[in-house]
Amino acid sequence: MINIGIIGGSGYTAGELLRLLANHPEASINFVYSTTNAGSPVASVHEDLYGTLDINFTDTVNPDVDVVFLCLGHGKSLAFLQANAFSADTKIIDLGNDFRLAKDAAFNGKTFVYGLPELNRNAIKSAQYIANPGCFATAIQLALLPLAKNGLINDTVHVNATTGSTGAGVMPSATSHHPWRTGNMSHYKAFNHQHLGEIVQSLQQLQNDFDDEVLFIPNRGDFARGIFATLYTKLNTDFELVVKLYNEFYENEPFVKVTTSSINMKLVLQTNNCFISLEQHGKNILITSVVDNLVKGASGQAIENMNLMFGLEETTGLKLKAAGF
Amino acid sequence: MINIGIIGGSGYTAGELLRLLANHPEASINFVYSTTNAGSPVASVHEDLYGTLDINFTDTVNPDVDVVFLCLGHGKSLAFLQANAFSADTKIIDLGNDFRLAKDAAFNGKTFVYGLPELNRNAIKSAQYIANPGCFATAIQLALLPLAKNGLINDTVHVNATTGSTGAGVMPSATSHHPWRTGNMSHYKAFNHQHLGEIVQSLQQLQNDFDDEVLFIPNRGDFARGIFATLYTKLNTDFELVVKLYNEFYENEPFVKVTTSSINMKLVLQTNNCFISLEQHGKNILITSVVDNLVKGASGQAIENMNLMFGLEETTGLKLKAAGF
Amino acid sequence: MINIGIIGGSGYTAGELLRLLANHPEASINFVYSTTNAGSPVASVHEDLYGTLDINFTDTVNPDVDVVFLCLGHGKSLAFLQANAFSADTKIIDLGNDFRLAKDAAFNGKTFVYGLPELNRNAIKSAQYIANPGCFATAIQLALLPLAKNGLINDTVHVNATTGSTGAGVMPSATSHHPWRTGNMSHYKAFNHQHLGEIVQSLQQLQNDFDDEVLFIPNRGDFARGIFATLYTKLNTDFELVVKLYNEFYENEPFVKVTTSSINMKLVLQTNNCFISLEQHGKNILITSVVDNLVKGASGQAIENMNLMFGLEETTGLKLKAAGF
Amino acid sequence: MINIGIIGGSGYTAGELLRLLANHPEASINFVYSTTNAGSPVASVHEDLYGTLDINFTDTVNPDVDVVFLCLGHGKSLAFLQANAFSADTKIIDLGNDFRLAKDAAFNGKTFVYGLPELNRNAIKSAQYIANPGCFATAIQLALLPLAKNGLINDTVHVNATTGSTGAGVMPSATSHHPWRTGNMSHYKAFNHQHLGEIVQSLQQLQNDFDDEVLFIPNRGDFARGIFATLYTKLNTDFELVVKLYNEFYENEPFVKVTTSSINMKLVLQTNNCFISLEQHGKNILITSVVDNLVKGASGQAIENMNLMFGLEETTGLKLKAAGF
Repeated sequence: MINIGIIGGSGYTAGELLRLLANHPEASINFVYSTTNAGSPVASVHEDLYGTLDINFTDTVNPDVDVVFLCLGHGKSLAFLQANAFSADTKIIDLGNDFRLAKDAAFNGKTFVYGLPELNRNAIKSAQYIANPGCFATAIQLALLPLAKNGLINDTVHVNATTGSTGAGVMPSATSHHPWRTGNMSHYKAFNHQHLGEIVQSLQQLQNDFDDEVLFIPNRGDFARGIFATLYTKLNTDFELVVKLYNEFYENEPFVKVTTSSINMKLVLQTNNCFISLEQHGKNILITSVVDNLVKGASGQAIENMNLMFGLEETTGLKLKAAGF
Repeated sequence: MINIGIIGGSGYTAGELLRLLANHPEASINFVYSTTNAGSPVASVHEDLYGTLDINFTDTVNPDVDVVFLCLGHGKSLAFLQANAFSADTKIIDLGNDFRLAKDAAFNGKTFVYGLPELNRNAIKSAQYIANPGCFATAIQLALLPLAKNGLINDTVHVNATTGSTGAGVMPSATSHHPWRTGNMSHYKAFNHQHLGEIVQSLQQLQNDFDDEVLFIPNRGDFARGIFATLYTKLNTDFELVVKLYNEFYENEPFVKVTTSSINMKLVLQTNNCFISLEQHGKNILITSVVDNLVKGASGQAIENMNLMFGLEETTGLKLKAAGF
Repeated sequence: MINIGIIGGSGYTAGELLRLLANHPEASINFVYSTTNAGSPVASVHEDLYGTLDINFTDTVNPDVDVVFLCLGHGKSLAFLQANAFSADTKIIDLGNDFRLAKDAAFNGKTFVYGLPELNRNAIKSAQYIANPGCFATAIQLALLPLAKNGLINDTVHVNATTGSTGAGVMPSATSHHPWRTGNMSHYKAFNHQHLGEIVQSLQQLQNDFDDEVLFIPNRGDFARGIFATLYTKLNTDFELVVKLYNEFYENEPFVKVTTSSINMKLVLQTNNCFISLEQHGKNILITSVVDNLVKGASGQAIENMNLMFGLEETTGLKLKAAGF
Repeated sequence: MINIGIIGGSGYTAGELLRLLANHPEASINFVYSTTNAGSPVASVHEDLYGTLDINFTDTVNPDVDVVFLCLGHGKSLAFLQANAFSADTKIIDLGNDFRLAKDAAFNGKTFVYGLPELNRNAIKSAQYIANPGCFATAIQLALLPLAKNGLINDTVHVNATTGSTGAGVMPSATSHHPWRTGNMSHYKAFNHQHLGEIVQSLQQLQNDFDDEVLFIPNRGDFARGIFATLYTKLNTDFELVVKLYNEFYENEPFVKVTTSSINMKLVLQTNNCFISLEQHGKNILITSVVDNLVKGASGQAIENMNLMFGLEETTGLKLKAAGF
């Protein structure tokens, strides 16, 4: 069994980790760290775990766990690791954005590997530290990797993606207040979203000369879960060939499904899947990509990384019933 | 023109008042008081008013307005009035619950009249101070008044009602956080809701010997606006007679519609209407009552009261397009 | 492996069965019968199964499967079975309401057992034919069984329950048309819902003298999944004792959780769980019960029954990640 | 008073017309034509009008009304007019798309004027026949007209817009079935939406040499009402100048509000307003445009056109309370 510690245990990604790990045959929750809820039952916050997980939040870190998941707010992981030392063997999976860019990835004499299995599977398997990708970044990269792999991105990439309200976290705010959010739509951080850095980094990893713009408008949707992303760019390549390249790239991937039929966001909710649909429109290829922001976009992918790091079957604990409706 | 001051200008009922008054032919907004937003444009908070209402919030009260609407949190109106004197002629309409019960209604040598026009129209017309009814209380009373009027409530009244998230106000909270609220349902304050007092008081006003229980379960619904209430009680009276009594009671009411067809909540959204449906089930009469919690359940009814107090046509400014969808 | 046939394969309960069985270690889908979609891929209708289940709908029944699930509309199962014979050993689990009442349960020289494991576990284990309970009926019975078991229901039971739109099935209709349903609430079949029969039958099974009314108002909610039910009745029993009796009744049940804390519907979505909350209000006990209408209220419970019938661990394939949000 | 006939009276745009006209001081509903509902009360379909509009649907056309609104499905208006003659003076406002393009606009020796007041106000005032713009087309054109007017569109225009489910009409369908639509997102007719024709036509009317692509992805949103559109294109012009040009273009427009603050869709729901927000991002200008698809995007604009055609104040009957929430 893998002894697991979770830091930042009150938030949505921690809750989703706990829900997933509850059914993971190799997972043993050692501690769930939360300064604000220390002493209270974990199920008092993640209430669906009532009767399933009967432990309390703690404000004490066990430095000897096999793996620790950092579910802190963005920008807080580095400070936490500087203040809390783990054993020399403890693996760390950071769900925040502190270590995702190569320029920030060095820590403690080692390097955080960017934990997108479809891009870095082998490096992940031998890594001790993982920077788990962002939710938008996951949906967008999976939509583009086969193009980059084949050196085909040679024009501006136009991205429009909408996220559910869980993406904004557990702390109530004006734009996640139900009266405002329900039946509404809006955008934020247009052209400036913080995930652009990791997206461009990955594209350049596969297509060294990539230097086109990625113009990205993120939207706030009227739903709790999911990311619906559309992307298009001009291609000089035959569409049938493109479809073939996508199918080849994802042929052995357990979680990515490629189709030329229309798709919708609900197909992947509550799963670790990413569905990708391809359409040709004149010179443009339109790529639609959908993920569950809390699963493939966060906690599911973190467990996928854990599985790879510990030599388990990648899908262990991640064969999830799709939401359907 | 009626010079109007609004106290507690940042909240939902104040916003709805301003939206309604923007099209009221006799209304002139003199000031909108908000300590937290003083100096900022009203449209910076109630953003749909951008280009329509170009005034700023103020923290200064003009004591000489013709009417002041108190849109403070429940329990704060009395303290505000004790700290802020208005002219001897200024009318006051309190949307909070401080003065709704007869035992609390005395103030400044006068008495707050309970502002349910279908119950107290004449008293409202000559009142200086009005306690505007609660939202649940409005839907529930309108469902029961014709029975009480005819002395027909002689058994327990069972009430189940669901409210939109605007009912919980503009301050974000855990149970109005979008990820939690959307696709969810829950109840709160079962059998103990604070509106029971005013409901029973009104029933006893019409049916002096009324002393049966009103068992009320309030629910939190997954929508922003509206109240959907079902009520039933045992009757010894012929159903056709009951329908006749309801039709007579509401015959000349501009905002209450009685039917024996099935109804749904959306019929009244964005209007000052209350739809009431009557069904017979064995010995029970089932009454369904729907209102918009922010209009007939709050700000619309407050303006209806203002119209009555100033001798205007009761529907002035309240002929509103129904939401439809 | 259990060879499985599914009849009425295009509907919601069939889709949910397929999603669940896709991860069931002992399940092998032999055929999915649909006259309207015969020849098309199952994943063309249940699109989330794309890449997971690569078989086509068929209009041919294999009479030798180990178990067949009937997912036809209510009232169509008997006709189907009369027209299509299965092997003498084939087990049948009917998700419709044709065989739920004892008076209708005889078929082919045998008897359909009412498949509520918390009530009839032993009979289910040895049954060949199962009548799977209705969704409302499941939520309501689980809320009341411990009272009935102890002979404590001695007054009218008042039930108000709201269901998601999947409860109305896959065929589009006026009251499940999105523009009408979203942000709306309504009731239907008040006091007359067809599940009342099976509810009363089960209560009488445990409490022979039960003859009180169950007054039930079913509502249409603005969400796709889930049932939120509140029930109350007058009790002469000490509340602490009642809590103790519920805890004892459900002590070894894998899917029912009893609490005295407040609960909400989302706690159980996408799971086979039922959460039950108990509150005392004067002489009334208030019981809140929540289930996922498609899982514990239909397909999950059907698989639970299959597990029992085939001697498997009851929770096989039913350890599901809760939706969370 | 204006005598009004409505054709296709059972649909959403007809219902919205009737709701709006109920409060229009110059409107008199002469007949509401519906072959499917002839003989039934209008309020049996548009139920919120119960107690407000007490007339029946008819299958007889009165050819002498002052104005007729065609609320038929797209492509059915021409056939209807060929089969049903109106008086020589009767004005016609077609809410469908039959006559929107100049090449299709000739009828009966006259020409349908494209009814976007911000573009064609003077022509509308003297027109007898109006082709009312499409909902997406309204939001998109209002976002672009000031650029076209000043000859500034000189690169591809990228448009992403999401519509509410009322946009798909009153007939239930798979993609407007509540279980599928709620909590979901999808796109349709990408790069091929039928509104592109009228959009390009209007841009060329103002900017004769306009020949750039308009790449438009329409999405299905999880809400009943509203359109949320984002558009961007590369500009060589100073942003402050652009803002000035927008403000000038819309300076005297009663329904269009220009801002550089962030906006959201709910600001305009239930109103005839269009809010436009401008942002600069490097060389790109980002324009956000929101309308209510049933009001400014359909029936409200149709009444605006009627007001202009009959010499009324343009805002008559269109000073609507914003939904707020």
